[in-house]
Formats: sequence, structure tokens, C-alpha cells
Amino acid sequence: MSQPFRLPFKVRDYECDMQGIVNNGVYFNYLEHARHEFLLQQGVNFAELTQEGIHLVVVKAELDYKTSLTSGDEFYIQVEPERPSKVRFAFRQTVVRLSDNKTVLTALITGTSLNKSGRPYIHPKVDCIFPRS
Amino acid sequence: MSQPFRLPFKVRDYECDMQGIVNNGVYFNYLEHARHEFLLQQGVNFAELTQEGIHLVVVKAELDYKTSLTSGDEFYIQVEPERPSKVRFAFRQTVVRLSDNKTVLTALITGTSLNKSGRPYIHPKVDCIFPRS
Amino acid sequence: MSQPFRLPFKVRDYECDMQGIVNNGVYFNYLEHARHEFLLQQGVNFAELTQEGIHLVVVKAELDYKTSLTSGDEFYIQVEPERPSKVRFAFRQTVVRLSDNKTVLTALITGTSLNKSGRPYIHPKVDCIFPRS
Amino acid sequence: MSQPFRLPFKVRDYECDMQGIVNNGVYFNYLEHARHEFLLQQGVNFAELTQEGIHLVVVKAELDYKTSLTSGDEFYIQVEPERPSKVRFAFRQTVVRLSDNKTVLTALITGTSLNKSGRPYIHPKVDCIFPRS
Repeated sequence: MSQPFRLPFKVRDYECDMQGIVNNGVYFNYLEHARHEFLLQQGVNFAELTQEGIHLVVVKAELDYKTSLTSGDEFYIQVEPERPSKVRFAFRQTVVRLSDNKTVLTALITGTSLNKSGRPYIHPKVDCIFPRS
Repeated sequence: MSQPFRLPFKVRDYECDMQGIVNNGVYFNYLEHARHEFLLQQGVNFAELTQEGIHLVVVKAELDYKTSLTSGDEFYIQVEPERPSKVRFAFRQTVVRLSDNKTVLTALITGTSLNKSGRPYIHPKVDCIFPRS
Repeated sequence: MSQPFRLPFKVRDYECDMQGIVNNGVYFNYLEHARHEFLLQQGVNFAELTQEGIHLVVVKAELDYKTSLTSGDEFYIQVEPERPSKVRFAFRQTVVRLSDNKTVLTALITGTSLNKSGRPYIHPKVDCIFPRS
Repeated sequence: MSQPFRLPFKVRDYECDMQGIVNNGVYFNYLEHARHEFLLQQGVNFAELTQEGIHLVVVKAELDYKTSLTSGDEFYIQVEPERPSKVRFAFRQTVVRLSDNKTVLTALITGTSLNKSGRPYIHPKVDCIFPRS
């Protein structure tokens, strides 16, 4: 059984807000980047799909904030695929701080894929990343 | 009975991504700004609280994306307070596009308030914005 | 003689960094938004030009930071067009804080316009916004 | 003679705008992160200085955009210190794309350092990073 996908990160100071911690909205950026790198490793290039007129879009985002990251923190994001329905796919994502192995945030991001007409269309390469049980 | 709080916005081009629509993470920024303006209208200044060592923090974010905003779109965000428990308060937020009155996104953002020791502390002014039922 | 273009803004808390002031990079976003709204007022829609394959691009940015904006500050950005050469146009921009009418930042942003082949192409509508002296 | 400081980066998709390229303002973020990592390598922690009430601030930014970065591009930023005057220090920064070794952007960022009273104060550790000629 293969290891789940993990992408290393380091907090950049411009991502911290007046509380001195990473702004809540920045985690959204981190999570998106980790999803796109996960897809790329699986052979799906988000930018190329976009140019072909296939839009992967988020329909639901659920984030649980456990603790905060701050300046200089190193962490990784683990990404695991799930398949809630035929036209929906999901990413279970976990942000883990390296210094103490503590979970900073857990997220479930559910998406779908639309073609140029705005109708659901799951590209075969996307389809096989998210196996239906 | 008073009207719910609403804050007007207009999409800025730098908020749009390669899909030509507002990037998913940007909604989080919009929602935060609307929450802080709502609090300010109720007499609570987020930046002043932060300087006093009282940190309002998000513990859970749930966002449902219904449709997308794009370059030039005008919209408002409605904010309504809820009180899920003694030490938690919540904001029910709705993003509505002006041109067709369509709901773009609904969100429930749950927060808590911590003092300098990192312990839950609900400031009296925050407490009365979120009435316990 | 007409008044120069001015766009009102208010600092949003997520734009402030750990120093409690607006992050340096955020001014670039403010300036871009002001330029696009200025162009729009003059009949040039940046997003539409982009879809037509005409890319307005920045080639040089010079920013002088005089003082800082912080949480809650209201300000406006003034935009004045200049024409340094046939294939280049420029925006002289000034960020002014409302509370004391103090200049926060001055900037000179020089751009050009490229067609689908990546060659300089100044659209007639853009051309007449920046009169050659 | 030691090698100049270089920090590796990879473009993240959320940094690209509707033109499909990295938004101009994002380079500001890249440059700031590279400066802070450069300072850290030299023993100066930006966040710690901020907490001590010493604010390193940008007074002038000059950026020359040569070409654009796009989705997936890998690049590095080179940082070299300069000392324009007693109370000012500067960073000469170059963004270089890995695939073809092409210079994407050159920048000269000039800063100063202020103490709690807002007066110029160059911390000894900062002073020796930027040798006066």
C-alpha cells in the first residue's frame, strides 16, 4: 500500500496577520496548492485542464482549525482522495506542523468538474484518481 | 426588528485566477472583512481587541459554493450572529450577487475568543452580540 | 479641466501583517485595482481585453513609501495617465489617507500592451487615454 | 568569496491571474519572503525584531519586469545587500526562471529600520549585514 501524498511548506511572513499568526484565509491557498500538486503527481495538470475548458471547481469546503501556524513554522499537507458520488470527488487534507507533529487543521474539500457548457464532466484521468467504492 | 447587516463589495481583478473567476480562497478574505465590519458596527474593534491580547479565532469554517463571481461583479455579504455554545459564537454569512440577486456562497464560520494565556475568554461586548437562546 | 480620477478604499484587516500595518505587497493590489477602475471609466475593460488576447502588462514599477496605513484607515488612490513613449504608457498614482490628507505612497507604473503573438500592440482605445505630448 | 544568497520557489496556481500568469503584485510577496530568508541566514529574525518593537520597513521599491512566470514554473531569487546611506540599506534582487536561466524580474528594494518611537535605528546585527563602503 502506497504512502499518502505529502507536500512540505514553510510559513512566509507575508502570510501572517496582525495577530502574528497565519491568517485563516491563507490555509485555503495552502490547501489548493497541495491539491494541485497531488493531482499533478497523479498525471492531472490543473492549468492544462483549465486551458482545455475543463474547470475543476470547489463546491464545499469544511475546515477545522486546531491550532495556529506562525512565522518560520515548517509543516506538510497530506492529501487523500475520496469519492462521495459519481459527479463529485473530495480531498481529505491534513496540515501537520513539523516541530511537534501536531495537527494544525483538517479539511474536507469537495469538488466537481465542469465542461465548457458548465455541465458536470469528469475527465477520465480525474475519474481514476478518485475510485468509486 | 432590525435588518441584517450587509456589506457591499466589488470584485477586484487581482482576486481572479486563471479560470477567470474569483479564486476560492479569496471568499475567505471577503467573509473575514464582512465579519470585522459587522463587529465594528456592533462596537467591537477587532484590531483593538488584538492589541489588548484578546484573540478572536476561527475554529470551524463551512463554505458552500453555489456559483462564481467574476471580474467587475458587485455583491454584498450578509452577516447574522448565532450562539452555538457558551464559549463559541458563529456568523452565518451569505454572498449575494447584485446583478441577479443570486446566492453565490453560504458560510457558517464558528469562532471562539482567547485571552493572553490562550484560555477561552468571551469579552462582555462580544458576548452580547451573540445572544444565548 | 477635469478632476483627476480618484478611487476610495478602506483597509481590510486581512491586508495587515504582523507589524499591524498594511503589508508592502498589498499596495500593489490596491494600485492595480485603481488602474483597472480608471481604465474602465475611460471605456477600457481589462478583463475583456484579456479575453480578446490583448495583454496589458507592467514593465516597470516604482513605489515610494512615505508612511503606513493600518486597520480601519480610509484612503483614496489618484490616477493620472502619462505617455513616456509610443509603445509605453504610464500611471502616476498617489495613495492619500483621508483622516489627515497625508500622502502614504507615490508610484509610477509603466506598462505596455501585447497582442497574441507577444508583440507590442496599443489598442486604439488605450492609445487615446494616454495622449502623446 | 561566498556565493550570493539564492532561494528556490515554485509558482502556485492561486498566484496566477486571469492572464494565466503570476500576478504582478505576487512578485512583491516572493521578494519579501526571499529578503526575510536572507536576513534569517545572516542571523536576523524579522518576526523577533518586530516583537522587540524594531520595524524594518520598505521606503522604496523599484521593479523591472522582463518576462512572466506561469503555472508550474520553478525559479530562484538571488539577494545581494547594498548600503546606500547610513540609515538606509538595500536589497538587489533577481528572479531567475530555472528552465531557461532567464531573468524574469530585477528589483532594488530600499529599507530602513525604526524603533518604537518611529525614529531610525539600525540594529547592530542588521548594520553588519549591509557594510558601508
